[in-house]
Amino acid sequence: MGVPKISVERKQERREQILGGARRCFAENGYEGATVARLEREIGLSRGAIFNYYASKEDLFVELAARDSARMSELWIDQGLEAVVREVVELDPAWLAVYLELFRRARTDTDFRERIESRQKELAGANRARIEEAQRAGELRDDIEPQHLGAFVNVVLNGLALLRASEDELLPPTELVLDLLNDAVGGPAGVRRGSP
Amino acid sequence: MGVPKISVERKQERREQILGGARRCFAENGYEGATVARLEREIGLSRGAIFNYYASKEDLFVELAARDSARMSELWIDQGLEAVVREVVELDPAWLAVYLELFRRARTDTDFRERIESRQKELAGANRARIEEAQRAGELRDDIEPQHLGAFVNVVLNGLALLRASEDELLPPTELVLDLLNDAVGGPAGVRRGSP
Repeated sequence: MGVPKISVERKQERREQILGGARRCFAENGYEGATVARLEREIGLSRGAIFNYYASKEDLFVELAARDSARMSELWIDQGLEAVVREVVELDPAWLAVYLELFRRARTDTDFRERIESRQKELAGANRARIEEAQRAGELRDDIEPQHLGAFVNVVLNGLALLRASEDELLPPTELVLDLLNDAVGGPAGVRRGSP
Repeated sequence: MGVPKISVERKQERREQILGGARRCFAENGYEGATVARLEREIGLSRGAIFNYYASKEDLFVELAARDSARMSELWIDQGLEAVVREVVELDPAWLAVYLELFRRARTDTDFRERIESRQKELAGANRARIEEAQRAGELRDDIEPQHLGAFVNVVLNGLALLRASEDELLPPTELVLDLLNDAVGGPAGVRRGSP
Protein backbone atom coordinates (compact mmCIF):
# COMPACT_ATOMS: atom_id res chain seq x y z
CA MET A 1 0.00 0.00 0.00
CA GLY A 2 1.29 3.44 -0.88
CA VAL A 3 0.70 6.79 0.77
CA PRO A 4 -3.06 7.30 1.23
CA LYS A 5 -4.38 9.54 -1.51
CA ILE A 6 -6.87 12.32 -0.93
CA SER A 7 -9.87 11.87 -3.21
CA VAL A 8 -10.89 14.36 -5.89
CA GLU A 9 -14.05 15.17 -3.93
CA ARG A 10 -12.09 15.74 -0.73
CA LYS A 11 -9.72 18.06 -2.61
CA GLN A 12 -12.64 20.04 -3.92
CA GLU A 13 -14.09 20.35 -0.41
CA ARG A 14 -10.74 21.57 0.86
CA ARG A 15 -10.61 24.22 -1.83
CA GLU A 16 -14.05 25.49 -0.86
CA GLN A 17 -13.09 25.49 2.82
CA ILE A 18 -9.94 27.49 2.04
CA LEU A 19 -11.67 30.01 -0.23
CA GLY A 20 -14.59 30.53 2.15
CA GLY A 21 -12.29 31.15 5.10
CA ALA A 22 -10.00 33.42 3.08
CA ARG A 23 -12.96 35.52 1.94
CA ARG A 24 -14.16 35.99 5.52
CA CYS A 25 -10.62 36.76 6.68
CA PHE A 26 -10.07 39.40 3.94
CA ALA A 27 -13.45 40.98 4.65
CA GLU A 28 -12.76 41.18 8.37
CA ASN A 29 -9.16 42.39 8.25
CA GLY A 30 -8.63 43.94 4.82
CA TYR A 31 -6.15 42.46 2.36
CA GLU A 32 -3.00 43.65 4.15
CA GLY A 33 -4.43 42.81 7.57
CA ALA A 34 -5.17 39.20 6.56
CA THR A 35 -1.94 37.71 7.93
CA VAL A 36 -1.02 34.07 7.42
CA ALA A 37 -1.78 33.41 11.11
CA ARG A 38 -5.25 34.91 10.72
CA LEU A 39 -5.85 32.97 7.51
CA GLU A 40 -4.89 29.74 9.31
CA ARG A 41 -7.29 30.51 12.16
CA GLU A 42 -10.24 31.47 9.94
CA ILE A 43 -9.74 28.61 7.49
CA GLY A 44 -8.95 26.04 10.16
CA LEU A 45 -5.94 24.60 8.33
CA SER A 46 -2.17 25.01 8.65
CA ARG A 47 -0.27 27.29 6.28
CA GLY A 48 1.31 24.18 4.76
CA ALA A 49 -2.11 22.78 3.86
CA ILE A 50 -3.40 26.14 2.60
CA PHE A 51 -0.43 26.95 0.41
CA ASN A 52 -0.48 23.45 -0.97
CA TYR A 53 -3.70 24.50 -2.74
CA TYR A 54 -2.97 28.17 -3.39
CA ALA A 55 0.68 29.21 -3.61
CA SER A 56 0.24 32.66 -2.05
CA LYS A 57 -2.18 35.09 -0.46
CA GLU A 58 -2.33 36.85 -3.82
CA ASP A 59 -3.36 33.59 -5.49
CA LEU A 60 -6.18 33.26 -3.00
CA PHE A 61 -7.38 36.77 -3.75
CA VAL A 62 -7.13 36.39 -7.53
CA GLU A 63 -9.16 33.17 -7.32
CA LEU A 64 -11.86 34.82 -5.16
CA ALA A 65 -12.08 37.84 -7.47
CA ALA A 66 -12.25 35.62 -10.56
CA ARG A 67 -15.04 33.55 -8.98
CA ASP A 68 -17.02 36.72 -8.23
CA SER A 69 -16.72 37.83 -11.84
CA ALA A 70 -17.67 34.39 -13.09
CA ARG A 71 -20.69 34.25 -10.77
CA MET A 72 -21.93 37.66 -11.96
CA SER A 73 -21.42 36.58 -15.54
CA GLU A 74 -23.35 33.32 -15.01
CA LEU A 75 -26.11 35.17 -13.23
CA TRP A 76 -26.46 37.55 -16.16
CA ILE A 77 -26.48 34.66 -18.62
CA ASP A 78 -28.98 32.56 -16.64
CA GLN A 79 -31.29 35.17 -15.15
CA GLY A 80 -30.67 38.48 -16.89
CA LEU A 81 -29.40 41.92 -15.92
CA GLU A 82 -32.04 42.57 -13.27
CA ALA A 83 -30.72 39.63 -11.22
CA VAL A 84 -27.16 41.00 -11.43
CA VAL A 85 -28.22 44.44 -10.18
CA ARG A 86 -30.12 42.86 -7.29
CA GLU A 87 -27.09 40.72 -6.44
CA VAL A 88 -24.61 43.63 -6.45
CA VAL A 89 -26.65 45.78 -4.05
CA GLU A 90 -26.82 42.82 -1.63
CA LEU A 91 -23.10 41.94 -1.66
CA ASP A 92 -21.20 42.01 1.63
CA PRO A 93 -19.91 45.59 2.04
CA ALA A 94 -16.83 44.36 3.92
CA TRP A 95 -15.80 42.10 1.06
CA LEU A 96 -16.53 44.79 -1.54
CA ALA A 97 -14.24 47.13 0.35
CA VAL A 98 -11.37 44.63 -0.05
CA TYR A 99 -12.24 44.32 -3.71
CA LEU A 100 -11.98 48.10 -4.15
CA GLU A 101 -8.72 48.27 -2.21
CA LEU A 102 -7.34 45.91 -4.82
CA PHE A 103 -8.31 48.26 -7.66
CA ARG A 104 -5.60 50.55 -6.36
CA ARG A 105 -3.09 47.74 -6.29
CA ALA A 106 -3.99 46.67 -9.83
CA ARG A 107 -3.16 50.20 -10.92
CA THR A 108 0.42 50.12 -9.67
CA ASP A 109 1.29 46.41 -9.67
CA THR A 110 1.52 45.34 -13.32
CA ASP A 111 1.94 41.66 -12.61
CA PHE A 112 -1.10 41.55 -10.34
CA ARG A 113 -3.12 43.54 -12.85
CA GLU A 114 -2.28 41.13 -15.64
CA ARG A 115 -3.34 38.16 -13.57
CA ILE A 116 -6.72 39.76 -12.82
CA GLU A 117 -7.20 40.80 -16.44
CA SER A 118 -6.33 37.41 -17.85
CA ARG A 119 -8.97 35.79 -15.63
CA GLN A 120 -11.52 38.39 -16.73
CA LYS A 121 -10.73 37.83 -20.38
CA GLU A 122 -11.79 34.21 -19.98
CA LEU A 123 -15.32 35.56 -19.41
CA ALA A 124 -15.36 38.24 -22.10
CA GLY A 125 -16.52 35.97 -24.92
CA ALA A 126 -19.46 34.57 -22.95
CA ASN A 127 -20.47 38.04 -21.78
CA ARG A 128 -20.43 39.40 -25.29
CA ALA A 129 -22.46 36.48 -26.61
CA ARG A 130 -25.00 37.08 -23.82
CA ILE A 131 -25.32 40.76 -24.74
CA GLU A 132 -25.81 39.94 -28.42
CA GLU A 133 -28.46 37.39 -27.53
CA ALA A 134 -30.23 39.95 -25.29
CA GLN A 135 -30.14 42.42 -28.18
CA ARG A 136 -31.76 39.89 -30.50
CA ALA A 137 -34.39 39.10 -27.84
CA GLY A 138 -35.21 42.80 -27.45
CA GLU A 139 -34.05 42.92 -23.81
CA LEU A 140 -31.24 45.31 -24.71
CA ARG A 141 -31.31 47.99 -27.39
CA ASP A 142 -29.59 46.91 -30.59
CA ASP A 143 -28.43 50.30 -31.90
CA ILE A 144 -25.26 50.28 -29.79
CA GLU A 145 -22.18 48.04 -30.04
CA PRO A 146 -22.37 45.11 -27.60
CA GLN A 147 -19.03 45.96 -25.98
CA HIS A 148 -20.11 49.56 -25.41
CA LEU A 149 -23.42 48.49 -23.90
CA GLY A 150 -21.54 46.10 -21.65
CA ALA A 151 -19.10 48.86 -20.66
CA PHE A 152 -21.91 51.22 -19.67
CA VAL A 153 -23.64 48.52 -17.62
CA ASN A 154 -20.27 47.86 -16.00
CA VAL A 155 -20.03 51.55 -15.02
CA VAL A 156 -23.41 51.35 -13.30
CA LEU A 157 -22.59 48.05 -11.54
CA ASN A 158 -19.23 49.42 -10.33
CA GLY A 159 -20.89 52.60 -9.08
CA LEU A 160 -23.43 50.53 -7.15
CA ALA A 161 -20.67 48.36 -5.69
CA LEU A 162 -18.69 51.43 -4.60
CA LEU A 163 -21.65 53.02 -2.83
CA ARG A 164 -22.60 49.67 -1.32
CA ALA A 165 -19.01 49.20 -0.04
CA SER A 166 -19.13 52.52 1.77
CA GLU A 167 -22.57 51.55 3.11
CA ASP A 168 -23.61 54.85 1.68
CA GLU A 169 -27.17 55.81 2.54
CA LEU A 170 -27.17 57.50 -0.85
CA LEU A 171 -27.60 54.22 -2.71
CA PRO A 172 -30.76 54.84 -4.79
CA PRO A 173 -33.75 52.45 -4.53
CA THR A 174 -33.07 49.29 -6.52
CA GLU A 175 -36.37 49.54 -8.40
CA LEU A 176 -35.41 53.02 -9.58
CA VAL A 177 -31.97 51.83 -10.70
CA LEU A 178 -33.62 49.06 -12.71
CA ASP A 179 -36.08 51.48 -14.32
CA LEU A 180 -33.45 54.04 -15.26
CA LEU A 181 -31.04 51.36 -16.46
CA ASN A 182 -33.85 50.05 -18.61
CA ASP A 183 -34.46 53.52 -20.06
CA ALA A 184 -30.74 53.74 -20.86
CA VAL A 185 -30.00 50.31 -22.30
CA GLY A 186 -33.30 48.42 -22.57
CA GLY A 187 -34.81 47.24 -25.84
CA PRO A 188 -38.52 46.84 -26.67
CA ALA A 189 -38.87 43.81 -24.35
CA GLY A 190 -37.02 45.53 -21.50
CA VAL A 191 -34.26 44.40 -19.14
CA ARG A 192 -36.67 43.45 -16.36
CA ARG A 193 -38.05 39.97 -16.14
CA GLY A 194 -40.57 38.41 -13.88
CA SER A 195 -41.89 41.72 -12.62
CA PRO A 196 -45.53 41.38 -11.61
CA MET B 1 6.33 97.31 16.61
CA GLY B 2 4.86 93.87 17.31
CA VAL B 3 5.51 90.52 15.66
CA PRO B 4 5.15 90.93 11.88
CA LYS B 5 1.74 89.65 10.83
CA ILE B 6 1.18 87.55 7.77
CA SER B 7 -1.45 89.14 5.53
CA VAL B 8 -4.78 87.51 4.69
CA GLU B 9 -3.68 87.14 1.06
CA ARG B 10 -0.42 85.51 2.10
CA LYS B 11 -2.31 83.10 4.34
CA GLN B 12 -4.58 82.15 1.46
CA GLU B 13 -1.56 81.55 -0.78
CA ARG B 14 -0.03 79.34 1.88
CA ARG B 15 -3.20 77.28 2.12
CA GLU B 16 -3.19 76.73 -1.63
CA GLN B 17 0.49 75.79 -1.57
CA ILE B 18 -0.14 73.29 1.22
CA LEU B 19 -3.22 71.72 -0.39
CA GLY B 20 -1.61 71.48 -3.82
CA GLY B 21 1.49 69.78 -2.43
CA ALA B 22 -0.56 67.46 -0.22
CA ARG B 23 -2.68 66.37 -3.18
CA ARG B 24 0.43 65.54 -5.23
CA CYS B 25 1.99 63.73 -2.28
CA PHE B 26 -1.12 61.60 -1.64
CA ALA B 27 -1.45 60.76 -5.33
CA GLU B 28 2.19 59.72 -5.57
CA ASN B 29 2.46 57.73 -2.34
CA GLY B 30 -1.09 56.78 -1.34
CA TYR B 31 -2.64 58.06 1.88
CA GLU B 32 -0.63 55.85 4.25
CA GLY B 33 2.57 56.35 2.26
CA ALA B 34 2.32 60.15 2.47
CA THR B 35 4.57 60.53 5.52
CA VAL B 36 5.11 63.88 7.22
CA ALA B 37 8.64 63.99 5.77
CA ARG B 38 7.27 63.45 2.26
CA LEU B 39 4.55 66.05 2.79
CA GLU B 40 7.20 68.59 3.91
CA ARG B 41 9.29 67.88 0.83
CA GLU B 42 6.41 68.06 -1.66
CA ILE B 43 4.84 71.14 -0.06
CA GLY B 44 8.15 72.91 0.57
CA LEU B 45 7.28 73.92 4.14
CA SER B 46 8.18 72.54 7.57
CA ARG B 47 5.74 70.38 9.50
CA GLY B 48 5.30 73.25 11.96
CA ALA B 49 4.15 75.57 9.17
CA ILE B 50 1.93 72.93 7.57
CA PHE B 51 0.18 71.84 10.77
CA ASN B 52 -0.32 75.47 11.72
CA TYR B 53 -2.85 75.56 8.86
CA TYR B 54 -4.19 71.99 9.00
CA ALA B 55 -3.99 70.19 12.33
CA SER B 56 -3.37 66.71 10.87
CA LYS B 57 -2.88 64.67 7.73
CA GLU B 58 -6.52 63.66 8.03
CA ASP B 59 -7.55 67.33 8.06
CA LEU B 60 -5.61 67.83 4.86
CA PHE B 61 -7.36 64.93 3.21
CA VAL B 62 -10.85 65.95 4.40
CA GLU B 63 -10.26 69.45 3.02
CA LEU B 64 -9.08 68.11 -0.35
CA ALA B 65 -12.04 65.72 -0.61
CA ALA B 66 -14.50 68.47 0.36
CA ARG B 67 -13.02 70.78 -2.27
CA ASP B 68 -13.41 68.09 -4.94
CA SER B 69 -17.07 67.64 -4.03
CA ALA B 70 -17.62 71.40 -3.99
CA ARG B 71 -15.94 71.80 -7.38
CA MET B 72 -18.09 69.07 -8.95
CA SER B 73 -21.17 70.65 -7.42
CA GLU B 74 -20.27 74.11 -8.76
CA LEU B 75 -19.50 72.65 -12.16
CA TRP B 76 -22.91 71.02 -12.28
CA ILE B 77 -24.59 74.25 -11.15
CA ASP B 78 -22.68 76.47 -13.60
CA GLN B 79 -22.31 74.26 -16.65
CA GLY B 80 -24.62 71.26 -16.29
CA LEU B 81 -24.27 67.51 -15.96
CA GLU B 82 -22.38 67.03 -19.22
CA ALA B 83 -19.50 69.12 -17.87
CA VAL B 84 -19.36 67.01 -14.69
CA VAL B 85 -19.16 63.75 -16.64
CA ARG B 86 -16.39 65.16 -18.84
CA GLU B 87 -14.51 66.32 -15.72
CA VAL B 88 -14.74 62.95 -13.92
CA VAL B 89 -13.33 60.96 -16.83
CA GLU B 90 -10.36 63.35 -16.99
CA LEU B 91 -9.49 63.30 -13.27
CA ASP B 92 -6.03 62.18 -12.21
CA PRO B 93 -6.23 58.37 -11.76
CA ALA B 94 -3.58 58.48 -9.03
CA TRP B 95 -5.58 60.93 -6.96
CA LEU B 96 -8.83 59.02 -7.57
CA ALA B 97 -7.13 55.89 -6.25
CA VAL B 98 -6.39 57.68 -2.95
CA TYR B 99 -9.98 58.84 -2.87
CA LEU B 100 -11.21 55.24 -3.22
CA GLU B 101 -8.79 53.99 -0.59
CA LEU B 102 -10.49 56.39 1.78
CA PHE B 103 -13.93 54.91 1.06
CA ARG B 104 -12.75 51.85 2.91
CA ARG B 105 -11.54 53.94 5.83
CA ALA B 106 -14.84 55.86 5.98
CA ARG B 107 -16.57 52.50 6.34
CA THR B 108 -14.71 51.49 9.50
CA ASP B 109 -13.68 54.83 11.03
CA THR B 110 -16.87 56.48 12.28
CA ASP B 111 -15.26 59.78 13.22
CA PHE B 112 -13.61 60.15 9.84
CA ARG B 113 -16.85 59.20 8.10
CA GLU B 114 -18.79 61.84 10.00
CA ARG B 115 -16.30 64.52 9.07
CA ILE B 116 -16.59 63.65 5.37
CA GLU B 117 -20.38 63.45 5.54
CA SER B 118 -20.78 66.77 7.35
CA ARG B 119 -18.76 68.49 4.63
CA GLN B 120 -20.89 66.84 1.96
CA LYS B 121 -24.10 67.87 3.67
CA GLU B 122 -23.07 71.49 3.25
CA LEU B 123 -23.49 70.94 -0.50
CA ALA B 124 -26.69 68.89 -0.43
CA GLY B 125 -29.06 71.87 -0.45
CA ALA B 126 -27.41 73.54 -3.45
CA ASN B 127 -27.29 70.23 -5.34
CA ARG B 128 -30.96 69.58 -4.74
CA ALA B 129 -31.90 73.10 -5.82
CA ARG B 130 -29.86 72.58 -9.00
CA ILE B 131 -31.66 69.33 -9.80
CA GLU B 132 -35.07 70.93 -9.26
CA GLU B 133 -34.11 73.82 -11.51
CA ALA B 134 -32.91 71.37 -14.19
CA GLN B 135 -36.22 69.54 -13.91
CA ARG B 136 -38.16 72.78 -14.45
CA ALA B 137 -35.92 73.64 -17.41
CA GLY B 138 -36.56 70.22 -18.99
CA GLU B 139 -32.90 69.17 -18.77
CA LEU B 140 -33.79 66.39 -16.33
CA ARG B 141 -37.00 64.36 -16.27
CA ASP B 142 -39.48 65.58 -13.67
CA ASP B 143 -41.31 62.33 -12.91
CA ILE B 144 -38.70 61.20 -10.38
CA GLU B 145 -37.86 62.63 -6.95
CA PRO B 146 -34.88 65.03 -7.15
CA GLN B 147 -32.90 63.13 -4.50
CA HIS B 148 -33.40 59.84 -6.36
CA LEU B 149 -32.34 61.37 -9.67
CA GLY B 150 -29.25 62.76 -7.93
CA ALA B 151 -28.52 59.37 -6.36
CA PHE B 152 -28.65 57.60 -9.73
CA VAL B 153 -26.38 60.19 -11.35
CA ASN B 154 -24.06 59.71 -8.37
CA VAL B 155 -23.94 55.95 -9.08
CA VAL B 156 -22.88 56.61 -12.67
CA LEU B 157 -20.28 59.22 -11.66
CA ASN B 158 -18.82 56.90 -9.00
CA GLY B 159 -18.68 54.03 -11.48
CA LEU B 160 -16.82 56.24 -13.96
CA ALA B 161 -14.41 57.38 -11.23
CA LEU B 162 -13.72 53.78 -10.19
CA LEU B 163 -12.95 52.62 -13.72
CA ARG B 164 -10.89 55.76 -14.33
CA ALA B 165 -8.91 55.12 -11.12
CA SER B 166 -7.98 51.66 -12.29
CA GLU B 167 -7.13 53.12 -15.70
CA ASP B 168 -9.45 50.50 -16.99
CA GLU B 169 -9.51 50.25 -20.75
CA LEU B 170 -13.13 49.26 -20.28
CA LEU B 171 -14.23 52.86 -19.66
CA PRO B 172 -16.93 53.41 -22.31
CA PRO B 173 -16.68 56.33 -24.77
CA THR B 174 -17.70 59.58 -23.05
CA GLU B 175 -20.19 60.47 -25.81
CA LEU B 176 -21.95 57.15 -25.28
CA VAL B 177 -22.09 57.69 -21.51
CA LEU B 178 -23.67 61.09 -22.10
CA ASP B 179 -26.22 59.68 -24.54
CA LEU B 180 -27.25 56.79 -22.28
CA LEU B 181 -27.31 59.00 -19.20
CA ASN B 182 -29.58 61.33 -21.14
CA ASP B 183 -31.88 58.43 -22.04
CA ALA B 184 -32.01 57.50 -18.35
CA VAL B 185 -32.45 60.87 -16.65
CA GLY B 186 -32.86 63.50 -19.38
CA GLY B 187 -35.99 65.62 -19.83
CA PRO B 188 -37.37 67.02 -23.11
CA ALA B 189 -34.52 69.56 -23.41
CA GLY B 190 -31.86 66.93 -22.61
CA VAL B 191 -28.83 66.93 -20.33
CA ARG B 192 -26.38 67.85 -23.09
CA ARG B 193 -25.63 71.46 -23.80
CA GLY B 194 -23.59 73.15 -26.42
CA SER B 195 -23.36 70.08 -28.62
CA PRO B 196 -23.07 71.08 -32.27
